[in-house]
Amino acid sequence: MTRYGGIDLGGTKIQAVVTDDQHQVLGASRHATPTTGGPAAVAEEIISAMRDATAEAGMSVNELAAVGVGSPGVVDDEAGTVTSARNLSDWEGTHDLRSVLERAFEAPVALGNDVNVATDAEFHLGAGKPHPSMLGVFWGTGVGGALVLDGRMWEGRGAAGEIGHMCVKLDGAICPCGRRGCMEAYAGRGAMEAYAREKVKGGAKTSLFKLMEEKGKQRLASGVWAKALERDDKLAHQIIDRAVEALGAGIASALNLVDVEAVIIGGGLGDRLGQPYVDRIRDAMMPHLFTDYRPPVTLAAALGDLGGAIGATLLAAERVPAHA
Amino acid sequence: MTRYGGIDLGGTKIQAVVTDDQHQVLGASRHATPTTGGPAAVAEEIISAMRDATAEAGMSVNELAAVGVGSPGVVDDEAGTVTSARNLSDWEGTHDLRSVLERAFEAPVALGNDVNVATDAEFHLGAGKPHPSMLGVFWGTGVGGALVLDGRMWEGRGAAGEIGHMCVKLDGAICPCGRRGCMEAYAGRGAMEAYAREKVKGGAKTSLFKLMEEKGKQRLASGVWAKALERDDKLAHQIIDRAVEALGAGIASALNLVDVEAVIIGGGLGDRLGQPYVDRIRDAMMPHLFTDYRPPVTLAAALGDLGGAIGATLLAAERVPAHA
Repeated sequence: MTRYGGIDLGGTKIQAVVTDDQHQVLGASRHATPTTGGPAAVAEEIISAMRDATAEAGMSVNELAAVGVGSPGVVDDEAGTVTSARNLSDWEGTHDLRSVLERAFEAPVALGNDVNVATDAEFHLGAGKPHPSMLGVFWGTGVGGALVLDGRMWEGRGAAGEIGHMCVKLDGAICPCGRRGCMEAYAGRGAMEAYAREKVKGGAKTSLFKLMEEKGKQRLASGVWAKALERDDKLAHQIIDRAVEALGAGIASALNLVDVEAVIIGGGLGDRLGQPYVDRIRDAMMPHLFTDYRPPVTLAAALGDLGGAIGATLLAAERVPAHA
Repeated sequence: MTRYGGIDLGGTKIQAVVTDDQHQVLGASRHATPTTGGPAAVAEEIISAMRDATAEAGMSVNELAAVGVGSPGVVDDEAGTVTSARNLSDWEGTHDLRSVLERAFEAPVALGNDVNVATDAEFHLGAGKPHPSMLGVFWGTGVGGALVLDGRMWEGRGAAGEIGHMCVKLDGAICPCGRRGCMEAYAGRGAMEAYAREKVKGGAKTSLFKLMEEKGKQRLASGVWAKALERDDKLAHQIIDRAVEALGAGIASALNLVDVEAVIIGGGLGDRLGQPYVDRIRDAMMPHLFTDYRPPVTLAAALGDLGGAIGATLLAAERVPAHA
């Protein structure tokens, strides 16, 4: 049996999975992403997470046929490098991620863009499966996107899918990227947290930061938002409503341009809040959607927070096809 | 020599051209689109315009190998019909445009969407020629768009390219389509005229409507806007600036999603105002463009107001390839 490793490398966590050649998950492990130590520490932690995942699968890390990695930053699979991944510790410039991993795994390593890899997983194995074309939206710290058009990832000149930086409000809020009025300026968890802090400074009451401390977090993680909504925190509701409105306008704008069959919404917040909030985003899309008489299918990502890592195993299987 | 007819059917004018199989224009004619008489009157005028264009080319209308038509509304080339073309007189429901034209021309007639046809012309013969992928933007009464991706028109489920209805301002101005904050609500000539009338009611001074009368127009045609800008009309400048800003944000948003090599801007206003204003739109794109370090080529449409009709001859040539 051919077994593949998949890594979803994120700013806060490293998710590793092991799958068989039928995409069944045999083992999984999640480690925190090191916040110090730079690329060497990150590579070390990837290896350690994969070791744990293979142990869970009852095998050794050196039995993997190939390993795929979904990474933030600018990924060059030919060179085996990742450049300026701002979410990762000290990841300025270009770093060779492949060599160190191939040495540890004694197997070929394929690199891909994290959002593309997660979209690919939903397209081939998840909620996008019945559709020839789809838009993947990943609602997390930022808002990422990727387009599959007639079965093929559309990458443009390499930077397609930046749905988070579509402008939904001229002269609007400043985005963490520095631009004005981006969808992410309203809907990215990073921007939402900054807005919440600003509101609290202005005297607003909220349980958000108390919940954060109770959960031992340093950021308003998706679980903190979910808990605050459960407890009917007024400010949390206001900020989430604002995000949903921006997501609705931005996603509808994207659909007006490309008119695909399906929208699949995942990411930290998308996965945590799930279909009820995906339905709210769909409702917020409708007033802006040109084809409102025939809206696309709008679903929560089916593979949840394993999607990225499972998508990375698809990269691995492309590199080393399963033997019969 | 194989000769083709091309028709660009618009709300205000019908442009006919005759080309040879090297896409050289041999004759052209422009008629006003009938505002009464419904589909029958429109078809009659198309035939008359084509008769004039062929006469200019020194031939009879029955010598055309095939004729293409770029039409507004929902075009069904298989059925030969055009449905709910709201810019045309009494064009509710579905009308068979092909049969009547094929009878008159004694040649096959191919139908296509007006914006797609004009984009195709720019892609194959005009400003888009050097690029594998491009976005066509037609800035006129409305704002239309079309995407060519890797040499192929991307139509999605049939309604792709509605760039005019991308939302650039949440809770923004009401668009002629009824939605809020669409790019067209700021940049469509229809919306711009409504806004100018509103401003005049509110006491603003402008020469726009006087120029309109002098030119014998009933609408603020593109030439009226051009003349008012030339004369430094303050309100005209304000409204055009507002349109340019919305176009910049909307086009940049589209590019952030699909990251194509080129943007070609045509349409009534685009053609009339030309490269200087296309440059201003490009400048307005830059603050919203994700790939601002590598902006796409941004050019005025090269075929000008013959683009749509020339594009329609490409449809005709696809239907009946040139004989050797």
